[in-house]
Amino acid sequence: MEYTIEGRNSVIEAFRAGKPIDKLFILDGCQDGPILTIKREARKTDCIIKYVDKDRLDSMSETGHHQGVIAIAAAYEYADMEDIFKKAMDKGEDPFILLLDNIMDPHNLGAIIRTANICGAHGVIIPKNRAVGLTAAVARASAGALNYVPVVKVTNLSKTIEELKDRGLWFVCADMDGDIMYDTDLTGPIGLVIGSEGEGVGRLVKSKCDLVCSIPMKGEINSLNASVAAAVMSYEIVRQRSYAK
Amino acid sequence: MEYTIEGRNSVIEAFRAGKPIDKLFILDGCQDGPILTIKREARKTDCIIKYVDKDRLDSMSETGHHQGVIAIAAAYEYADMEDIFKKAMDKGEDPFILLLDNIMDPHNLGAIIRTANICGAHGVIIPKNRAVGLTAAVARASAGALNYVPVVKVTNLSKTIEELKDRGLWFVCADMDGDIMYDTDLTGPIGLVIGSEGEGVGRLVKSKCDLVCSIPMKGEINSLNASVAAAVMSYEIVRQRSYAK
Repeated sequence: MEYTIEGRNSVIEAFRAGKPIDKLFILDGCQDGPILTIKREARKTDCIIKYVDKDRLDSMSETGHHQGVIAIAAAYEYADMEDIFKKAMDKGEDPFILLLDNIMDPHNLGAIIRTANICGAHGVIIPKNRAVGLTAAVARASAGALNYVPVVKVTNLSKTIEELKDRGLWFVCADMDGDIMYDTDLTGPIGLVIGSEGEGVGRLVKSKCDLVCSIPMKGEINSLNASVAAAVMSYEIVRQRSYAK
Repeated sequence: MEYTIEGRNSVIEAFRAGKPIDKLFILDGCQDGPILTIKREARKTDCIIKYVDKDRLDSMSETGHHQGVIAIAAAYEYADMEDIFKKAMDKGEDPFILLLDNIMDPHNLGAIIRTANICGAHGVIIPKNRAVGLTAAVARASAGALNYVPVVKVTNLSKTIEELKDRGLWFVCADMDGDIMYDTDLTGPIGLVIGSEGEGVGRLVKSKCDLVCSIPMKGEINSLNASVAAAVMSYEIVRQRSYAK
């Protein structure tokens, strides 16, 4: 099974992460810096480079934003739960996992995977049902982070929370009716549960969490974008585990 | 001059914020909760309600996401700098302003305006050149926040920074080469300068800032989405001004 990686940053990141890329399509005549970087990376592998016109790229594009370059690679594979724990252990850190409930929008999923990498979370868990998978749009929105962040797909999020509790994690659910996150101790091995803007976290999943925690809302509008909320709360976890005096 | 407001939340917010809406187009046969709420709000005003078919809505839509409802209103007006200071004074708070350099993507601009409202910033400043204006796509991405957040357009961002310094503000520029934000005092009357993902903040604008400040980056990927970075740093300002012990 194959998939496309589209856009300059995503393609560069894919090469650098050692993804097995079979073919590379570049807009004929394109010679700028990022394209030259991509060609240099491509020559280190046995990937086939083809120069094509814009119509060809447009017709191959799944996201509509190829920026003159599309790579064909083997489909992203879901990770195993042990990959997440191994990542935490290798870094000598308490596990920090993002669990996503009801996130259907590929841009939000990609953005959260991107943030997960940057803030140093060790993995992302998504449910099998009612969620978007690891598509080209997700890969692109992740800006290459999908190459580094283990994403685990589980059948039942509530059951997974129970299992991870047995492994020493505790769970905080992001929701408006919770305690202000700044007044809450978010240290230790933690799972942060994020829901969608519309529906939030499901009732059963929420009931499995040890704590409900909120971002202070000071305006007339009352919901942050899901990927923004995930980032703000993730960074409060980062601050508490690494920077709080 | 007129513009369209599209999507249920955006239209509801526009009515509630008292925006002058001239006409309301609703998909014929639509009877769900949000649509009924919109009709109730519309009846409080002298707005004309028209029931139309999907083709008509699709052809009117600028964003492609009308969700069965489009309102026609007077164009969003840019605010005056005094509106921002008045907002801070009315709340009895030190001014907190977001200045955006090189943000061209309407989704990012809308998302930042949304975050500005929720985190309690008093206004957003954008430069006249090289920036997206207040379009329907921006309004929609702001999820209604554009009705509440004063957005000021200025000719020269560097000069504006100088002028605001004379009014007692100090300026922090978000950039990767700065001090970690958690180790930095971000209290007092503050302007937070955010650049685009690709280009960052312009050299001249950056040189006018009192401080360069960064979000800790712990992964392989090295840039956050601009709207995510704006939110994470804005909330660190919120934490320091309201929640730090």
